[in-house]
Amino acid sequence: MPDTLSILVIDDNAIRASIIEAGLREAGHDRVRVITEIDDVAGQIGAIAPDVVIIDLENPNRDVLEHFFSLSRSLKRPIAMFVDKADLSSIEAAVDAGVSAYVVDGLRKDRVKPILDMAILRFRAFSRMQEELEAARSELQGRKIIDKAKGILMRTRGVSEEEAYALLRTTAMNQNRKIAEIAQSLVTAAELLGS
Amino acid sequence: MPDTLSILVIDDNAIRASIIEAGLREAGHDRVRVITEIDDVAGQIGAIAPDVVIIDLENPNRDVLEHFFSLSRSLKRPIAMFVDKADLSSIEAAVDAGVSAYVVDGLRKDRVKPILDMAILRFRAFSRMQEELEAARSELQGRKIIDKAKGILMRTRGVSEEEAYALLRTTAMNQNRKIAEIAQSLVTAAELLGS
Repeated sequence: MPDTLSILVIDDNAIRASIIEAGLREAGHDRVRVITEIDDVAGQIGAIAPDVVIIDLENPNRDVLEHFFSLSRSLKRPIAMFVDKADLSSIEAAVDAGVSAYVVDGLRKDRVKPILDMAILRFRAFSRMQEELEAARSELQGRKIIDKAKGILMRTRGVSEEEAYALLRTTAMNQNRKIAEIAQSLVTAAELLGS
Repeated sequence: MPDTLSILVIDDNAIRASIIEAGLREAGHDRVRVITEIDDVAGQIGAIAPDVVIIDLENPNRDVLEHFFSLSRSLKRPIAMFVDKADLSSIEAAVDAGVSAYVVDGLRKDRVKPILDMAILRFRAFSRMQEELEAARSELQGRKIIDKAKGILMRTRGVSEEEAYALLRTTAMNQNRKIAEIAQSLVTAAELLGS
């Protein structure tokens, strides 16, 4: 973890914000920005583009929590959240929203760094798995659509399976596109044309 | 989360174990077993078969940590671990080993329940994603092996793609097995026979 990580701290309580800031600085992090205004957080995050976000909410109501959970869903970055109290349903919502560390009543200066490290590492592990899942699903989807396109060609042009595949491949090469893309175009067109 | 969850606490420090136990009981968990002997933990877990495992290690050395991480890898259950100090590499190892909650210097009676809840929910989210990944990969693998088997039949028996698939399907139905299994047998046999 490089010390040059840029960290955004969102906290409307100045005393708690300074605890987090101190914990980060003592751990060698010097690119820390603190914002205390929690309106338009999304806009600010867009402008600052931090590597990690730490959100300290002390005792948030449902609406504020939901606001930050939905932010977490759209933000592809590690997020650590500190709250002072939590019931089971808010913990569940935090996990669902991909909050990498959700710390209930555990804000203390010297705990900030291990929690930050944990949030980053969990985020990476989760992202890696998510990428693998997307890759597997997209390859599967590609094979399905190619099979469908081959079937259309075999039926409409009376060619063999190998010939159908060769047709798709040649078209893809000529158009500098992927075979799955050509297959998708063909399937879409066949649906539109009812052929 | 039902209160009837069976929880195993592993802790060689009796005072710390009683803090965890008290936190659990106050949160309504009454199926709690504490073991203070950390040798043959795997055997004990097998015998007790708890729903969740809480491990408190205070200040573990590398070997003890590695022992519990490897336990975590083989155990398909939520694990929460408390340690008093941790460096970046041990946090990394904990995430890698699938430890659902790794709490550095945060043992306190009233924090036990939210950490336990978090560990269980994170474990579920992670397991769900892992199952989806395995399902997608196994479906992909199945399609690949079926394609290969079809190719072998088309080449060796001079049949069309549809006929090859129909052969695989009929054989699978007759033997009450999956098409992918029949395809795998055929591919293996063809490799052995060099055909």
